[in-house]
Amino acid sequence: MSISSFHPPVRTLMGPGPSDVNPRVLEAMARPTIGHLDPVFVDMMDETKQLLQYAFQTSNALTMPISAPGSAGMEACFVNLVEPGETVIVCQNGVFGGRMKENVERCGATAIMVQDDWGDAVDPAKLEEALKAHPEATVVAFVHAETSTGAISDAETLVKLAHDHNCLTIVDAVTSLAGSPLMVDDWGIDAIYSGTQKCLSCTPGISPISFSQAAVDKVQSRKTPVQSWFLDLSLVMAYWGGGAKRAYHHTAPVNALYAFHESLVILQDEGIENSWARHAKNHEALKAGFEAMGISFLVDESCRLPQLNSVFVPEGIDEAAVRTELLNSYNLEIGAGLGPMAGKIWRVGLMGFASNETNVLNCLGAMDAVLSDMGAKFDSGSAVKAARASFSS
Amino acid sequence: MSISSFHPPVRTLMGPGPSDVNPRVLEAMARPTIGHLDPVFVDMMDETKQLLQYAFQTSNALTMPISAPGSAGMEACFVNLVEPGETVIVCQNGVFGGRMKENVERCGATAIMVQDDWGDAVDPAKLEEALKAHPEATVVAFVHAETSTGAISDAETLVKLAHDHNCLTIVDAVTSLAGSPLMVDDWGIDAIYSGTQKCLSCTPGISPISFSQAAVDKVQSRKTPVQSWFLDLSLVMAYWGGGAKRAYHHTAPVNALYAFHESLVILQDEGIENSWARHAKNHEALKAGFEAMGISFLVDESCRLPQLNSVFVPEGIDEAAVRTELLNSYNLEIGAGLGPMAGKIWRVGLMGFASNETNVLNCLGAMDAVLSDMGAKFDSGSAVKAARASFSS
Repeated sequence: MSISSFHPPVRTLMGPGPSDVNPRVLEAMARPTIGHLDPVFVDMMDETKQLLQYAFQTSNALTMPISAPGSAGMEACFVNLVEPGETVIVCQNGVFGGRMKENVERCGATAIMVQDDWGDAVDPAKLEEALKAHPEATVVAFVHAETSTGAISDAETLVKLAHDHNCLTIVDAVTSLAGSPLMVDDWGIDAIYSGTQKCLSCTPGISPISFSQAAVDKVQSRKTPVQSWFLDLSLVMAYWGGGAKRAYHHTAPVNALYAFHESLVILQDEGIENSWARHAKNHEALKAGFEAMGISFLVDESCRLPQLNSVFVPEGIDEAAVRTELLNSYNLEIGAGLGPMAGKIWRVGLMGFASNETNVLNCLGAMDAVLSDMGAKFDSGSAVKAARASFSS
Repeated sequence: MSISSFHPPVRTLMGPGPSDVNPRVLEAMARPTIGHLDPVFVDMMDETKQLLQYAFQTSNALTMPISAPGSAGMEACFVNLVEPGETVIVCQNGVFGGRMKENVERCGATAIMVQDDWGDAVDPAKLEEALKAHPEATVVAFVHAETSTGAISDAETLVKLAHDHNCLTIVDAVTSLAGSPLMVDDWGIDAIYSGTQKCLSCTPGISPISFSQAAVDKVQSRKTPVQSWFLDLSLVMAYWGGGAKRAYHHTAPVNALYAFHESLVILQDEGIENSWARHAKNHEALKAGFEAMGISFLVDESCRLPQLNSVFVPEGIDEAAVRTELLNSYNLEIGAGLGPMAGKIWRVGLMGFASNETNVLNCLGAMDAVLSDMGAKFDSGSAVKAARASFSS
């Protein structure tokens, strides 16, 4: 065996994540490792918490990164907030609602599913019906921005309904954080998790979470221990929130947290409203380009995510061949459909650092070239021009 | 709020981990992020698996990194191999045996504790007694190299005893991997986990694991689902072991895996026996220096880890003040004692890239200066000379 160092190609990442990482983040990640109990590191943890509170628009004291990817952040919310025997209402309109159901059941609780079609937003009326039918429910869980379809749901309304029926809320904000308006405190969200590899322009591997006081109260009054030691927030909190007397829990992923801190500094410097506006603007241009190619969107305009564009594969086109050609000849990654959407849609991300004019224009140019070579019928060249016009308007 | 980029100081990390990271690893970590389903990334995953098999000295097909720190690797072993109602014998001779007990209980199983003094190796006779007293036991768990004390246990003998009583084995190799001889196949270990931030010279945040066929068989014949979705190996395996048809599970921490791959390439290039020998040689020199200062070891020479040196704080010396002075004036981190050892010992690591001549000499020179300033009685200057002589012999 003689294996060499790995040197990845330079790709443009316009799939469902990871998205392009800001070079400042990569550079921060390579800074010298220091100890996870070093006072200088502990100061950085405090800064990270403050920056993350800003990103989530919250003053929740329990706001911190979980040292693992978004799916561990999801699990952290469920294993801490759900006890065996409870009933949880899960709204599903894509892949990730299904994963929530798995989490509920592995906590020994019952999941009541509220189903909406893939590509639709969660319907508040259906949630209300389920809440009325299940007065025993203690938690409502839903995905704010479904990464598998590109649909955004009205989190504020869903949370209000849940509260009206004395339920806490668990919200998946993996794809929405920093890309679409998200107001944890104003909307009253109780537990939220996200990922770093989408609109934060950071490397994958960390899951930021935030818990309201009501959620913390529930964790602290549990009758049974949290089934996961690694994700037990009563232990993790003593490390992240312990001030000078921090209790050792696990060894923090030091360099990944440098990267996360840097990505949050970049967001602070841009301003979160400006980040939302940038995602919206680049989406408009991409949309203009797709429309010029006759490519239509899965999701209705009323609930369409600007940072994740699910579009139908034109008839007669081999969708996998297009993605392979884009990757091999253009170093451009776009995403495939998942589950029932496999083979039918592409998912084109414009997230974080990847949400920029150059990417919009390059992606449209490359797709134009590949699709017209494969015989798709549209006015070649029109897509880039339409996007350019959108930017200039 | 206006928070700036974080620029850590350059420390020398000679505590219990994280240890000094090889600059090649930091550089690898900052390479451009690519997609976690990119064919080029998938090839890198295959290489990583091969390299990790070499590090563990195993041909186990289920050999891979968990996308989270060592404590998640520990939890992955327990939640997959232990079902509710089972009995697990846990040998404890330090902090991490206690964490194993927590894991067993959170799986709904019963932990039978076999206790040895902190600083001692696990006593095989006590394990045998427990195995005889508990024929219902299904799993034996122990720590190969206790990071809290610096004692190494005879894993081969303990595993043989467990197998003689039809138990599978879970072994913590967080501190031993690449620092001390560890032969997963020859010793018949069933499930093992480690960390990246010790003798692999890598950044913290990833936990390599390996499962024998017997362990995989047990996972596949479980009567109950694994309580953790994130750590369910039947799902993770489909991602890491699925070849061309990999099933999406979670977004891999791409850049952290670049770093991990690089650290394993470095180990392959050095040769694992050479790595073990280097750790032993540098320990001898550090020991010569400590003895010249009249500083003695917690752990008997018969079971002393070369990569983690637990030494008694000289009488009348404020141990925390020494560590603070070393950090502030020498940028040198050494570790404190944990639990009953707090205030009594220091833990001086010589792990991975940190295990080198320069670190041994600098550490002894700095400790000599700080301790003699604080009034410790020894022949100042003798420690560095003794270490230098050890290297030259």
